[in-house]
Amino acid sequence: MSNELEAMQEALRAALGGVRGANPLVGAVVLSPAGEVLSVGRHDGAGTAHAEAAALAALAPGQARGATMVVTLEPCAHHGRTPACSQAILDAGISRVVHAVADPHGPAAGGAEHLRAAGVAVSQGLLAEQATELNRRWFAAVADNRPYTSVHIAQTLDGRIAAADGSSQWISSPESLAANHALRARVDAMLVGTGTVFADNPRLTARTPQGDLQARQPLRVVLGEREIPADAAIRADDNWLQVHGHDPLEAGRELRERGVEHLMVEGGAQVTAAFLSADLVDELIISVAPTILGAGISSIANLGIETLSQARHFRWDPAADVVRHGSDLTLTLIPEGKN
Amino acid sequence: MSNELEAMQEALRAALGGVRGANPLVGAVVLSPAGEVLSVGRHDGAGTAHAEAAALAALAPGQARGATMVVTLEPCAHHGRTPACSQAILDAGISRVVHAVADPHGPAAGGAEHLRAAGVAVSQGLLAEQATELNRRWFAAVADNRPYTSVHIAQTLDGRIAAADGSSQWISSPESLAANHALRARVDAMLVGTGTVFADNPRLTARTPQGDLQARQPLRVVLGEREIPADAAIRADDNWLQVHGHDPLEAGRELRERGVEHLMVEGGAQVTAAFLSADLVDELIISVAPTILGAGISSIANLGIETLSQARHFRWDPAADVVRHGSDLTLTLIPEGKN
Repeated sequence: MSNELEAMQEALRAALGGVRGANPLVGAVVLSPAGEVLSVGRHDGAGTAHAEAAALAALAPGQARGATMVVTLEPCAHHGRTPACSQAILDAGISRVVHAVADPHGPAAGGAEHLRAAGVAVSQGLLAEQATELNRRWFAAVADNRPYTSVHIAQTLDGRIAAADGSSQWISSPESLAANHALRARVDAMLVGTGTVFADNPRLTARTPQGDLQARQPLRVVLGEREIPADAAIRADDNWLQVHGHDPLEAGRELRERGVEHLMVEGGAQVTAAFLSADLVDELIISVAPTILGAGISSIANLGIETLSQARHFRWDPAADVVRHGSDLTLTLIPEGKN
Repeated sequence: MSNELEAMQEALRAALGGVRGANPLVGAVVLSPAGEVLSVGRHDGAGTAHAEAAALAALAPGQARGATMVVTLEPCAHHGRTPACSQAILDAGISRVVHAVADPHGPAAGGAEHLRAAGVAVSQGLLAEQATELNRRWFAAVADNRPYTSVHIAQTLDGRIAAADGSSQWISSPESLAANHALRARVDAMLVGTGTVFADNPRLTARTPQGDLQARQPLRVVLGEREIPADAAIRADDNWLQVHGHDPLEAGRELRERGVEHLMVEGGAQVTAAFLSADLVDELIISVAPTILGAGISSIANLGIETLSQARHFRWDPAADVVRHGSDLTLTLIPEGKN
C-alpha cells in the first residue's frame, strides 16, 4: 500500500531526529483507516518514550482505534524504563502494525507475536534494508553481546589530543565540554586506558557547566593491567571498576553483563586504536577545536596501517553530522566496515 | 544618518558572500536621496566586477543620479582588470560616497581624492573597525608587501596528510579535488617545498575534473635550496620558478614583486609550519576526509609548541566556514594573531 510505504519513509526520516545510544533510532507514523497521517513520533534516547508511544501520545483518546501503526522497528514487548509498546498499541485499538525489521534485543523481542496473538494484523519487512542500515552498528553491538560504543575525541585541527608536554586541559571550548558532559550523563559507562589515568587523572564524572555532579553518573571503567592508585580521581567513589586485560571485545561483554548498554570510550590514543582495530567503534564523535599544536600526542595511535589504501573509512552520521559547539565543531561519524 | 549606518551593515554582510584572494571582500549599497536601498553589490574575487560596479549595474540608467554610494572600502582609482570605480561613480551621477576604510593598496588608492576633486561629498570612517576586521589579513599582506596567502591542507580526521609509506593520492574526495583545482585557477601562484617535489612530484596545475588544463594557470613555485631535477613534473613548462632560501616572508616579497597577489601554499608539513611560524598564513583551508590512518605524516610540522597554552588559535571564516565537498568537509579559518 503506497500510503504505508510513504509512512515508513517518513518514520525513517523522523528516526534520524533522535539520538543514538543504548536504544536504536526509531520512528513511527500512525495512519488512519483512510491512509492519512494522524501523527509522527520518534524515540529520543534511552529513558524517553518509545517512538510508538510518542506517536500515540499525540492523538486524542480513541483516535487510534482501527488505525495502522507504521514503525521502523518491531514494537517492544517488555516493560523496561518505559512501558511495553505492544501493550500500548493494543490499548489504543490499533488494528494493523507494519514494522520494517524485527527487534533482536532479547528482553524486548516478541512484540509482533504478542500483537498477533491479540488479533492485530502484523506485517514485517517494508523498507527493511533502510531500517537495518539506519541502526547497522546498534544491531552489530546487540549481535556481539556488547554495549553500543561511542568513542569521543577532543582534538586540534591537526589531530592532536595533547601538547608535547602532555597538557590537554582544555583543548575544547566550554560549549563542547558541556555537550560532552551531557553525553556522559546519558551513557551507562565511560572507559579509559590506564595510560590516561596516569597521565591525566580524569574524574570521568558527568558535571554541569558549574562543576556540580549531574544526577545520573556513568560507571567509570579503566581498561588495562596497571594497578590504579587508591587516590586516583576515578576512585573517588565506588562507581568504578577496572577491567583487566587489553581485549576490548572481552571488556565490552563483561560490561554488557553488568548492564552497560551504552559505553563511551574517552581515550587515550592507544585505547581508541584498540577499539578501532577490533571494529568495535559504533560511532566516532570528534570535537575539533580551531587550534593547531604542530606536535604532541596524535588522537589515534598506530593501527598498523602502512599505505593510504588501507585507511579506515567512515561516513557522516545522517542523524548528527556536523554541529557547532561554541568555537568547536563536533563531527559524528559511523565506521564503514564489516559490521 | 541611520540609513547610512544600516546600509553599511548590509554592505558588510554582502561582502561576506564574496571570495577572499588577491582582492579584499567588499560590499556596496546604493541609497536613494530619500534613503531607500536601491541596490546591493559585492565583489566576487579578482577579475570580477568590483562591489560598486555590481551595485550600479543593478540600476536603471539615471537611477543613481543624486544617490549615495555606501561601500566598505574606498572606491578604487585605477583601471586594473576592471574599470576604476571612482570614475564609474562619477559617470553614474552619485553625489555622496560613504566608505568605511581607505584602500591601502598603492595602485588602487586615491579614489576618494578623485571623487572629492569632482565635487562628490565623501565621508570615511563609518563602521571602520568592522570593515578593517573583515579584511584584517588582506590589509596585513598589503602592509607586508607580500601576497595574500592561503594554505591548503588535505588531511584525514586524525590530521594525516600521507600514510606511513608516503602515499597521499588521493586522500580527498573527487569533489574536494575539483574545488581545490577551481581555487588553483584563481590564485596567481602555488608554492610547495622541495621536500614535496621529491616526495610527490606534483604537477601543481589547475585541472578540470576530466584532467584537462584550465585556461588560467598559477605560477608554480618551489621554496628551498635543493636542485629540482629537469624531469620534475613542476618543470613541465616555463611557468615555474624556484625561490632559494627558507624565509617565507622573503619568498612572498619576491613573488609580490613578480605580480603575485594571491599565493596558495600546498605543503608539505614543513613549509606550512614555516609560514605559520612567521604568521604569514592569511587563511587556512583544510579538506578533511572521513578517514583515519593512525600513522604517517602529520599535516603541520613542529612549530616549537611545548604546551597547550602556546597553541595557535584560529577563528572560522564568516565568509566560508564549513562546506561539504562530496564526502569531505572543507574548513576555512583565519589565524588569530598579531596581524
